[in-house]
Amino acid sequence: MARVSQQHLDARRRQILAGAARCVSRNGFHATSMQDILRECGLSAGAVYRYFSGKDELIAAIADEAFSSIRTAFQEAAATTPPPTPDVLLGRVLRRMLVEEVPGGDRQAFARLVVQTWTETLRDERLAAILATGYNGMRQAWAELVHAYRVNGQMEADVEADHVARTLIATAQGFIAQQALFGDVRVEVLEDGLRALMSMRDPKIS
Amino acid sequence: MARVSQQHLDARRRQILAGAARCVSRNGFHATSMQDILRECGLSAGAVYRYFSGKDELIAAIADEAFSSIRTAFQEAAATTPPPTPDVLLGRVLRRMLVEEVPGGDRQAFARLVVQTWTETLRDERLAAILATGYNGMRQAWAELVHAYRVNGQMEADVEADHVARTLIATAQGFIAQQALFGDVRVEVLEDGLRALMSMRDPKIS
Repeated sequence: MARVSQQHLDARRRQILAGAARCVSRNGFHATSMQDILRECGLSAGAVYRYFSGKDELIAAIADEAFSSIRTAFQEAAATTPPPTPDVLLGRVLRRMLVEEVPGGDRQAFARLVVQTWTETLRDERLAAILATGYNGMRQAWAELVHAYRVNGQMEADVEADHVARTLIATAQGFIAQQALFGDVRVEVLEDGLRALMSMRDPKIS
Repeated sequence: MARVSQQHLDARRRQILAGAARCVSRNGFHATSMQDILRECGLSAGAVYRYFSGKDELIAAIADEAFSSIRTAFQEAAATTPPPTPDVLLGRVLRRMLVEEVPGGDRQAFARLVVQTWTETLRDERLAAILATGYNGMRQAWAELVHAYRVNGQMEADVEADHVARTLIATAQGFIAQQALFGDVRVEVLEDGLRALMSMRDPKIS
């Protein structure tokens, strides 16, 4: 076998993940076979199985890459003082995930794939573990930012940081669900909405 | 056939919907057959088909009831001056949907069912239409509340009301996704998180 560069290996790996993301988001997790994925990528079984043992491992790798991209955005944010407010940070993360670096290249298809993984965790323990780790990492990162917001006088309410973390993650998840459902969601929608919430006065009035 | 009261008919209808919700959320939409639903309800085919023509109609009815329950909560909210803030209103709606009047009685199972309908719209146009109508109604209701928040001086930021509406709906959707994923979400989490967001100062700092 000819010696291949790391760059070539990485590009091939991305090509396979993109093909798998397109197949699964188009036809659903269960209706997609490895044959479909091979056809979509235009690659031989040998070329694909060199990287991934099967469909489950491919889905796990897609989820892993998505979480890794989100982690990078959080690490960059945490290095800034004062840290970017939730509208700015969520806007940045979602723009990267759904616009600039969409696995498979189709944002509605990718959003549908994300939503599918949420139900798939019911039957796939490995995927459930990857999602649990990924979301726990995000909760931790957001909780640290919430602490920084308090230190910098950007957030007044004294509630559990993890509750704020989960609420912000929920907002992003729901945004992805809407992208899957309606296909027409622009990231500005969420940025505007969060800014409006942050401009509300006297939460005690009700 | 003996004459039966409307009360009896309604109770039977609810019994069937609850059984269907349990089946589908346990085994997924595609793996559930009408036979499974009959067995779960402990009813004969004749008794069930008197109410619903099949699985698709059952799912549509579950979605319809959920949206109707949410609509009622919004109508009550809109009748109050000043209107309840998002933390209060979303808390109330989610408590009703996921704690007090859970179709099928199991909140994680119901949350999983909701998430499944989001992917199912890809293949089921009728369900997609029901969800589109349901979400459009919610967007309209939230947009009216946003207008009331402005009139009452509760919200400063001047952004499109529909963007705020979608963001708040996204928060609720993501909360349901977390309930499906983790099963341990309490409504206070979202109430706290929204209150914290509403207490943020100077959204321009970033």
